[in-house]
Amino acid sequence: MAQNPASTRPDASRRSERSRRAIYEAALALVGEVGYPRTTVEGIAARAGVGKQTIYRWWSSKADVLLEAFLDLSAQAAEQAADGGAEYAIPDTGDLAADLKAVLRATVDELHDPRFEAPARALAAEGVVNEQLGREFVATLLAPQLQLYVRRLRAAQDAGQVRPDVDPRIALELFVSPLAQRWLQRTGPITHAYTDTLVDYALGGLAPR
Amino acid sequence: MAQNPASTRPDASRRSERSRRAIYEAALALVGEVGYPRTTVEGIAARAGVGKQTIYRWWSSKADVLLEAFLDLSAQAAEQAADGGAEYAIPDTGDLAADLKAVLRATVDELHDPRFEAPARALAAEGVVNEQLGREFVATLLAPQLQLYVRRLRAAQDAGQVRPDVDPRIALELFVSPLAQRWLQRTGPITHAYTDTLVDYALGGLAPR
Repeated sequence: MAQNPASTRPDASRRSERSRRAIYEAALALVGEVGYPRTTVEGIAARAGVGKQTIYRWWSSKADVLLEAFLDLSAQAAEQAADGGAEYAIPDTGDLAADLKAVLRATVDELHDPRFEAPARALAAEGVVNEQLGREFVATLLAPQLQLYVRRLRAAQDAGQVRPDVDPRIALELFVSPLAQRWLQRTGPITHAYTDTLVDYALGGLAPR
Repeated sequence: MAQNPASTRPDASRRSERSRRAIYEAALALVGEVGYPRTTVEGIAARAGVGKQTIYRWWSSKADVLLEAFLDLSAQAAEQAADGGAEYAIPDTGDLAADLKAVLRATVDELHDPRFEAPARALAAEGVVNEQLGREFVATLLAPQLQLYVRRLRAAQDAGQVRPDVDPRIALELFVSPLAQRWLQRTGPITHAYTDTLVDYALGGLAPR
């Protein structure tokens, strides 16, 4: 039987990468199961099968571990969605409505991904009552995504498809925030048809043309 | 010195009303301080200066007490906003934009009310991770408010100010959800100018007319 070179000649970077991934998975699983306040670095270490010091060598707190674990999860999701592409960008095909609908449909799929649901809810809930974590969460995970919409809307303004007096940072909330609220507060079903409708209403407006 | 008849001849209903109010205030203060999971009926009773059985005579659980305490707080806020009016309705002056802006400005003021902030965050955070409480919270507190927007938008459709093919239940989210997300996740400042802008964008649309 052929020997697996990775198991007979482990090298440090491969071991590190394996530990890092085990820590991410343990952190996400644990926070989803017991919530943020009861998640500890000790608990993450035990579940990942590493020493506590291994975690503290790379991160300064459980918040840091979790935020990076989420960044990693998002990057994986983006890579799958983009079929190997490295960045989670918004396409610019020249058709603003189609591009926004495509990205929001992908977000709907991600929100329904069971790997994402419980840990994301645990972190979001903590952010509602814990201002420091909430702001860190937004700056690290949410703001960069919103910035992609700002860029796409600016390009649409240059192309004459969005009014020049519109503030893109507020405009994006007309289709991003309804989806966020339905997910956070369970105020309604989350489907592709729903996000398509949001884009149509936001671009066309509710008043008759 | 004239005697206060209320203090010399207390009657049962007045005592009940005083206890009820003390229980609401204790419940809201406690959940704002220690969060939902650590709030107990015993703790509410101790803080309100009543026996645990007094609470169980009127409510079946801490969730019930808290939901009613919030309903009472909202009713008080609406009464103050309406200067004595009993119901928290959306005005219909015939000017849809002005009516929506007025209500959203009042909501902004309520979100900045310190009596509201901590307990509302505690309950909202719990609703994110606790599906049963979240759904009860939405059905009791949020859905009735959203229904007022549905009615106002339907009236606007009858008046030809909103396109007839628009679903009012989704349309309202274009201006309600951005405010909700900014409050829940602290993604941006909450001001009257901001909610005015949301209404203008939602009604007029982002695309050039």
